[in-house]
Amino acid sequence: MKEIKVGILGLGTIGTGVVKVFQKNSELIQQRLGARLTLTKIADLDIITDRGIEIDPELLTTKAEEVLDHPDIEIVIELIGGYEPARSFVLRAIANGKHVITANKALLALHGDEIYAAAEAKGVEVQFEAAVAGGIPVISSIKENLCANHIRNVQGILNGTCNYILTRMTDAEENFDDVLKEAQEQGYAESDPTFDIEGVDTAHKLAILIALCFGTRVDFNDIYTEGITGISAVDIQFARQFGYKIKLLAIGKMGYGKVEARVHPTMIPVSHPLADVDGVYNAVRLVGDFVGPVTLHGQGAGMEATASAVMGDAVAVARNLLAGAPVRTPSLGYPLAQRKDLPVRPMDELIGQYYLRFAIPDQPGVLAQLAGVLGTYDISISSMIQPERQVGGAVPIVMMTHEAREADIRSAFAEIDAGGLVREKSHLIRIESDLF
Amino acid sequence: MKEIKVGILGLGTIGTGVVKVFQKNSELIQQRLGARLTLTKIADLDIITDRGIEIDPELLTTKAEEVLDHPDIEIVIELIGGYEPARSFVLRAIANGKHVITANKALLALHGDEIYAAAEAKGVEVQFEAAVAGGIPVISSIKENLCANHIRNVQGILNGTCNYILTRMTDAEENFDDVLKEAQEQGYAESDPTFDIEGVDTAHKLAILIALCFGTRVDFNDIYTEGITGISAVDIQFARQFGYKIKLLAIGKMGYGKVEARVHPTMIPVSHPLADVDGVYNAVRLVGDFVGPVTLHGQGAGMEATASAVMGDAVAVARNLLAGAPVRTPSLGYPLAQRKDLPVRPMDELIGQYYLRFAIPDQPGVLAQLAGVLGTYDISISSMIQPERQVGGAVPIVMMTHEAREADIRSAFAEIDAGGLVREKSHLIRIESDLF
Repeated sequence: MKEIKVGILGLGTIGTGVVKVFQKNSELIQQRLGARLTLTKIADLDIITDRGIEIDPELLTTKAEEVLDHPDIEIVIELIGGYEPARSFVLRAIANGKHVITANKALLALHGDEIYAAAEAKGVEVQFEAAVAGGIPVISSIKENLCANHIRNVQGILNGTCNYILTRMTDAEENFDDVLKEAQEQGYAESDPTFDIEGVDTAHKLAILIALCFGTRVDFNDIYTEGITGISAVDIQFARQFGYKIKLLAIGKMGYGKVEARVHPTMIPVSHPLADVDGVYNAVRLVGDFVGPVTLHGQGAGMEATASAVMGDAVAVARNLLAGAPVRTPSLGYPLAQRKDLPVRPMDELIGQYYLRFAIPDQPGVLAQLAGVLGTYDISISSMIQPERQVGGAVPIVMMTHEAREADIRSAFAEIDAGGLVREKSHLIRIESDLF
Repeated sequence: MKEIKVGILGLGTIGTGVVKVFQKNSELIQQRLGARLTLTKIADLDIITDRGIEIDPELLTTKAEEVLDHPDIEIVIELIGGYEPARSFVLRAIANGKHVITANKALLALHGDEIYAAAEAKGVEVQFEAAVAGGIPVISSIKENLCANHIRNVQGILNGTCNYILTRMTDAEENFDDVLKEAQEQGYAESDPTFDIEGVDTAHKLAILIALCFGTRVDFNDIYTEGITGISAVDIQFARQFGYKIKLLAIGKMGYGKVEARVHPTMIPVSHPLADVDGVYNAVRLVGDFVGPVTLHGQGAGMEATASAVMGDAVAVARNLLAGAPVRTPSLGYPLAQRKDLPVRPMDELIGQYYLRFAIPDQPGVLAQLAGVLGTYDISISSMIQPERQVGGAVPIVMMTHEAREADIRSAFAEIDAGGLVREKSHLIRIESDLF
């Protein structure tokens, strides 16, 4: 029976999960593949800490080059995360003619071009199903099954930490800070949660999805990225009154020669296919011109689900090798030469509905003045909630707009905030009602 | 630029959809594939009827052999449907060394073995993503991405006609017969809807899913198949009162060396991931030992969504051919020699919760007698609804059981129905609360 040797870089959470798949399901994989997939070497700087599994000490090394330069290893799985040394290691593996599997969305979002080009030049595959939405087969669905479609819209809930926090804020009516603390205690949020709660992790994943779906490059810095730290319990309550939930969405759209690429808290109707994606689950919804809307839902993170995706990639590469076809599908599903370089639509050009929240002093006439300013900028209101008056203090007033231009909202806010009409900076949440 | 020639058998709805993809998205496919996929010949007995698209008359033929024996066609797409002549044509295409793509679930459910074995012997691929859940990438997700998982549970809403009817019965509170008529008028149900509403179509698809997920053969006749014709508006209303919806589910489970393979109306909690799959949409939920639960949702039928899946397969085969690997993945995701032949668990052994409906005469003491019989058979009741009394007539009484054995329910029903306790045959609906 043929054997294909695999090496792992990085024995963190996902690395440990991958080792568990090898230990538990090797026989199953061998039956399906008709060949042995053998874990040959695992490199990590720390080979002392107990990961809760038994690993043959012969497999372990602290030297990445024992994986990267191993003469018999054909598939290198990079699970170190971050930019360096992951980038250098991946490039060296490619230079050595090894196929690479990675779950590293940060690396691909920023250095994907360099890596895909190196792989294309060398004639090896780079696969990264685990980099977006963990165990959910999103990437290969786009690259393979849906490849006969023009995809013009993709939306995703791609960060389990944010979704857990927003779900808890919604269900338990707690504040952001309390829920974050609770999430950290339960292991759903990192001790430094910045990348997650500021939307950066979601934006990394969106950059990858846009390249796959729309066939265009997007500069990571051009993705509008707004996290969930500005969402208050009061926004969630008002959203509910209007029939909406608040989710951190990654949104990609293509039209009129430009790409929308944005990550921000978004109000979606409770009937929206992503509205019930709760807790640490992820989901991606996309629309193709033939397939129509497709929604894929599952565990977007975690040791075992992510390991499932990594091993799916490993078997895919092994199938290519066994069939005598080392490179079957380009990294992005199309040759790099075919890639477009469409501009990203500036946020000012965005047209949509908005939820606006103002803190106004409890005085007669303020609402009229507010409405007057909004009217000046062509912003019309579809509904409004003004809770009972609190004598003397500031009261929140919330409005849902009809379709408006983001530039106009910004201008109106500038005038309102500068004009002393409000007691706090005015606040907006974008709405996606549109089911395409 | 390389060219791969494709022939189509059958210019019905899906065939027309595939021609539309060729006409509309050939350039996109060429960019992604790096080669031309050319529609070379289309065979149908009727090449006269207007399908609403322009087709070069040179492409059309009434003779299947002009596709099957065409020296340059490498990929044959079978879209005739049914058993014959589809079976003979597919086998002849394989014998001629052509790769086959089919959307024909009936053919694969009954003659899959013969076809997969012929393909394996000849060294060609048979792909059938469109055969289950239309455009949703279910089959390749199981065969490829999730292949490192033991899958022990799969549930699906796989028939748009049934789901449309049940959704309308739920939302509009109409009767089965009225909704069926409406569905026929709107083109959501065939003029002879038997295969759909009796669950046969769903069972065909379940047979395929079980072979893929569990690696075992299932004789189509061993699949318990119950359609939706016995569901009444009153069941749907009671289900709602208990917090459930009624869906026609395909259910496959594996455990203790046996397979559960059943298609029947099923009550699922409104919070179940499949409860909101409405109208003509399909969805599949499965659980892998590493990936956990994954739910895939989209259009399960229709010209365009199904054509998307067919073309996804065509590109996949073309990628193999271009990479020099005519056969990359076996038809079922594993070599036929690896297939198990596990027995199907008899329905009598089923253990689960049940919804029971009895039509009892409006007399004192009948409920006590009914409960007595159920108790004799170890069936305990978790809740009950008895609507207001209708003097003199029969009244429905409904009960939800705790876990019970189906054999015991059957025995209790036999005794109850024979004992003159009820005015109509007693009625059950199985419940799946279990989210695994």
